[in-house]
Amino acid sequence: MNQDISDCKTIRVHAPATVANMVCGFDVLGFCLDEPYDVMTLTLLEGTSDIRIRHVDDHDLPTEPSLNVAGAALIALQEELETPVGFEVVIDKRIKPGSGVGSSAASAAGAVVAANHLLGGRFDPTTLVRFAMCGEKVASGVKHADNIAPCIYGGVTLIRAVFPLDIVPLPAPSLFASVVHPQIEVRTSDARQILMQKVFLKDAIKQWGNIAGLVAGILKGDKALISRSLEDVLIEPVRKILIPGFDLVKERSLAAGALGGGISGSGPSIFMLSADRATADAVAGAMADVYRSMGIDHHTYVGPIAKGGVRIVA
Amino acid sequence: MNQDISDCKTIRVHAPATVANMVCGFDVLGFCLDEPYDVMTLTLLEGTSDIRIRHVDDHDLPTEPSLNVAGAALIALQEELETPVGFEVVIDKRIKPGSGVGSSAASAAGAVVAANHLLGGRFDPTTLVRFAMCGEKVASGVKHADNIAPCIYGGVTLIRAVFPLDIVPLPAPSLFASVVHPQIEVRTSDARQILMQKVFLKDAIKQWGNIAGLVAGILKGDKALISRSLEDVLIEPVRKILIPGFDLVKERSLAAGALGGGISGSGPSIFMLSADRATADAVAGAMADVYRSMGIDHHTYVGPIAKGGVRIVA
Repeated sequence: MNQDISDCKTIRVHAPATVANMVCGFDVLGFCLDEPYDVMTLTLLEGTSDIRIRHVDDHDLPTEPSLNVAGAALIALQEELETPVGFEVVIDKRIKPGSGVGSSAASAAGAVVAANHLLGGRFDPTTLVRFAMCGEKVASGVKHADNIAPCIYGGVTLIRAVFPLDIVPLPAPSLFASVVHPQIEVRTSDARQILMQKVFLKDAIKQWGNIAGLVAGILKGDKALISRSLEDVLIEPVRKILIPGFDLVKERSLAAGALGGGISGSGPSIFMLSADRATADAVAGAMADVYRSMGIDHHTYVGPIAKGGVRIVA
Repeated sequence: MNQDISDCKTIRVHAPATVANMVCGFDVLGFCLDEPYDVMTLTLLEGTSDIRIRHVDDHDLPTEPSLNVAGAALIALQEELETPVGFEVVIDKRIKPGSGVGSSAASAAGAVVAANHLLGGRFDPTTLVRFAMCGEKVASGVKHADNIAPCIYGGVTLIRAVFPLDIVPLPAPSLFASVVHPQIEVRTSDARQILMQKVFLKDAIKQWGNIAGLVAGILKGDKALISRSLEDVLIEPVRKILIPGFDLVKERSLAAGALGGGISGSGPSIFMLSADRATADAVAGAMADVYRSMGIDHHTYVGPIAKGGVRIVA
């Protein structure tokens, strides 16, 4: 144990929400939001390998480490330490589970980033993503990284490949996101099952033209190109069926000036990107109006694409 | 008719070879070579809308304008002129037809770029691509733009969408291409027919992870990322069957230091990219060795990814 560790045994982090898929970038792109975020407090426990989890919210999530997203991520991290250490984890989950903005990813990413800090920063970000993916497996059965990576790196991230893991951080374009979370349930597993196993090659070609355009637009700072590329001919037409009001939200958002957007992760949240905050506010208003008129409870968030991921606050 | 036109009635251009698909970028990416190139001489004919085509090579290509690639492209251009003009076209085709390095695209692109110059540059590059695509339709039955666009723009081009046409020019990475053309025939139509109409979504996801990585690598100048992204899980495994020696060429090229590569267009040419000319020369040597040992006639070319497309030389 080095000096850094004994000097700093407790740490608090904000683990932000993230938007996976980014319309045409199914399973490979994601970006980081400023809020909402979970507040997580980790304390290093020496001389034990116990993981003790406590929730200070109303979500009734499991506290058994192997069944808890943060716990499973920390177990994966512990397995690569020579000296056993334990963690006390206090979670104030402010990102509603099942909302489609990376609630489970925030817990997993927040836990491993905080733990890594307590351990003197011995693991690189890609390794932390790998640990956190074990948390995602607990949540959804799949070790996907498209929320975890932006939650740890910030900005926009590309998961070029999963085996072996190859993460390409892209700069955060100066865009603002509007997110609406209608209070309906879409299970990630249902959203997966509804997809076709096979797709037409001609549609796949359209999709990779768009993802190539989106990545080029992000790297060139070309908002018009980003806007034209935010088109999904494969996943959205199928999944939007699970989200009442989707088409109207999209139509009204574009009319309010959004560059484009679509389903956040596997839904039910919907995100839109805009060139400035005023437009993003107007878009969020238009989104809320749709669900208000449908009598569906909802929350909205507006903020920039965040340049950084999990933030250490104390 | 303005002054520019009467001042300059004959023009000579070099219309270069191009590599379409770029491994994972099937139907959407292409890049421009320095050589081989066709030499085309166009003369403006006033008071007529005749197109007179003459070949000064041994390829026995059609001279009837509507059946000739350059002719069909010029007819498309003529249709958007108010005043009828004609063209005399002399073609010295040095890019062997059917070699898979954009021979037909060079004729079509060279013709419209030269004609546009004779007409005072009234059409923008995207419009020229649109005209030249009518030439590609004569050659292969499909109005594809993935050779035409790099031949006109130079560098690497992304065809984000075909309808409506959306071309995204990318900067030319400072890489060198090695191309081997084995003297065997692969018909574009056969190469199309061999492809599956449907593909697994999980494979399509791998492919768009790679194309996103390739575009990011090109824009960031990250050669290691370009190398990792030059992987094609969908098209190459099927099409390589039509190209004897493909696997060995690839294996030997990578062993000689290539970053990666694959089938050029629909083949039979194979291209590899390298970080410097010395490596590209060694790679071309390794490629040639394979076909020499197989007793298959072949040509090789080595050169940078060309920053410019069709060049005006006189």
